[in-house]
Amino acid sequence: MQCSCGRKAVYHRRYSGQHLCARCFRRMVEKKFMETVRSNGFIAHTDTVACGVSGGKDSLVLLHLLHGLQKKVRFSLFALAIDEGIAGYRDRSLPYVTKACETLGVPLHVRSFKESFGYALDEVTAMKERVGACSYCGVFRRSLLNSASRELGATKLALGHNLDDESQVILMNMLRGDFARFGRMGTYRKHVNDQFVPRIKPLREIPEKEIVLYAVLAGIDFDFEECPYAPEAFRDEVRQFLNTTEEGHPGTKHALLRTYDKLYPFLNEALQPSVLPSCERCGEPSIRPLCKKCELLDAIRDGLARDDQS
Amino acid sequence: MQCSCGRKAVYHRRYSGQHLCARCFRRMVEKKFMETVRSNGFIAHTDTVACGVSGGKDSLVLLHLLHGLQKKVRFSLFALAIDEGIAGYRDRSLPYVTKACETLGVPLHVRSFKESFGYALDEVTAMKERVGACSYCGVFRRSLLNSASRELGATKLALGHNLDDESQVILMNMLRGDFARFGRMGTYRKHVNDQFVPRIKPLREIPEKEIVLYAVLAGIDFDFEECPYAPEAFRDEVRQFLNTTEEGHPGTKHALLRTYDKLYPFLNEALQPSVLPSCERCGEPSIRPLCKKCELLDAIRDGLARDDQS
Repeated sequence: MQCSCGRKAVYHRRYSGQHLCARCFRRMVEKKFMETVRSNGFIAHTDTVACGVSGGKDSLVLLHLLHGLQKKVRFSLFALAIDEGIAGYRDRSLPYVTKACETLGVPLHVRSFKESFGYALDEVTAMKERVGACSYCGVFRRSLLNSASRELGATKLALGHNLDDESQVILMNMLRGDFARFGRMGTYRKHVNDQFVPRIKPLREIPEKEIVLYAVLAGIDFDFEECPYAPEAFRDEVRQFLNTTEEGHPGTKHALLRTYDKLYPFLNEALQPSVLPSCERCGEPSIRPLCKKCELLDAIRDGLARDDQS
Repeated sequence: MQCSCGRKAVYHRRYSGQHLCARCFRRMVEKKFMETVRSNGFIAHTDTVACGVSGGKDSLVLLHLLHGLQKKVRFSLFALAIDEGIAGYRDRSLPYVTKACETLGVPLHVRSFKESFGYALDEVTAMKERVGACSYCGVFRRSLLNSASRELGATKLALGHNLDDESQVILMNMLRGDFARFGRMGTYRKHVNDQFVPRIKPLREIPEKEIVLYAVLAGIDFDFEECPYAPEAFRDEVRQFLNTTEEGHPGTKHALLRTYDKLYPFLNEALQPSVLPSCERCGEPSIRPLCKKCELLDAIRDGLARDDQS
């Protein structure tokens, strides 16, 4: 098949019916990224953007695109990597981050669970009585991304969630009846607490498949490995269903995101407190008096103490 | 396994962890029906309820439960069956309706597509250029259910949609990005046009499986056959996914309905016109100047005329 420009097509974008050559494909991804940034007002020239980077395809494509955008919008950009302390995984993916930042000339900051909270993730998961690894990791990572971005002077925190991630989470929250969380996923929240760095997701309308292909075509070297901690079973079911449905009905993931985006203004109005309180211990934004991170840290301290005694 | 009353259990209600004997199971279904009617204010003693009946399990269980409710709430009740004109199907299921109405002593009214609109469904689907059978049937049936209920003096139109139907449609509308339709499925709409008979769905919180078992245990004779017109492929995919997910995570269908019900007040506020206009030709409630039924009737007249000429 041929691209409309006459070159040989490398990609069939089924949901729009287009066949695209490598060059037009890259332009199309860049255009979609730009449109998402612009239509949501994600970035102004006064912004300092922290780009969360893991070494995987999504975050490195995001870093690449943000760096490109700096030619048009003169905002400041730095990369922020979190070292959870997962032996054999993060120590192997961080070099991809270092290399990408060096190539692009983007400053890189690394923060670790161990230094920030006192425990590496592997120490936490070695506890006898524990919940799933992702429950600790998600809470700690979100907390650290926010506090480190803020301390480093960021006004926005950019995350690499793609269309697949977003549509999976929308569906998971609906199927779980988690209305509160359902109302918290929109483009970005009003700045209701000056300790909270607003999160932006410039890749939310780009399918995972296109992110991978973009990385390959743009020569972005990334870590292919998945996190060794078992992925969530429920998410896998939802992923599979959405992929099958997208196959039979191209455009389904986009439609799901669109429905959510139309709901979001009502949800935001109804569910968001006009001012987000702060954790009474650490001062980070938190709906409850003690934030989830501080609560988990207490549980870990107690759990490890029990393990020592036994 | 034993029921908590000591009798032998016939059903494991996984989403609540209960094992139920035949008697407790029937009571539980009746209680859930009553709760849904009461908490939504579906029926008052001043109401005249038209119960849409097809001869299938859902509508006959609904008729049975509504008839039982009359002992507690002194509303009026009649049954309304629609004969679409599907040879070998509806003529076989209608006797189940007649028998149920005779047994319960509930007046029955039958309206046909042929008499009301001039065409039986089989005539329409014999056209050369046509859309799917369900597209005609759904529009005509909804229109006729409303106009006949109203003409027969009903103040509410009760429909047999169960939890599976409701959760499938919620998910389908989300996945299709059909935001307008997504906002139109709630418990029941405000009476915004005096030609519109508000619809109530008293079985919406009861899983299909439990409706079947209830029908069997209560000795309700119903037609097992499915409509011969091919079911919608997309609905089948969604049904399968929801059934698999419910299997692995009992309570998923209820959770989905709960999320929707929480969204509904916002959607209703945002999407419903305060007054629903009427079709300029037939006078039935319609958002557009010409209602969908009148539009389809025009297309059928033209289509059949073209077929005659060729």
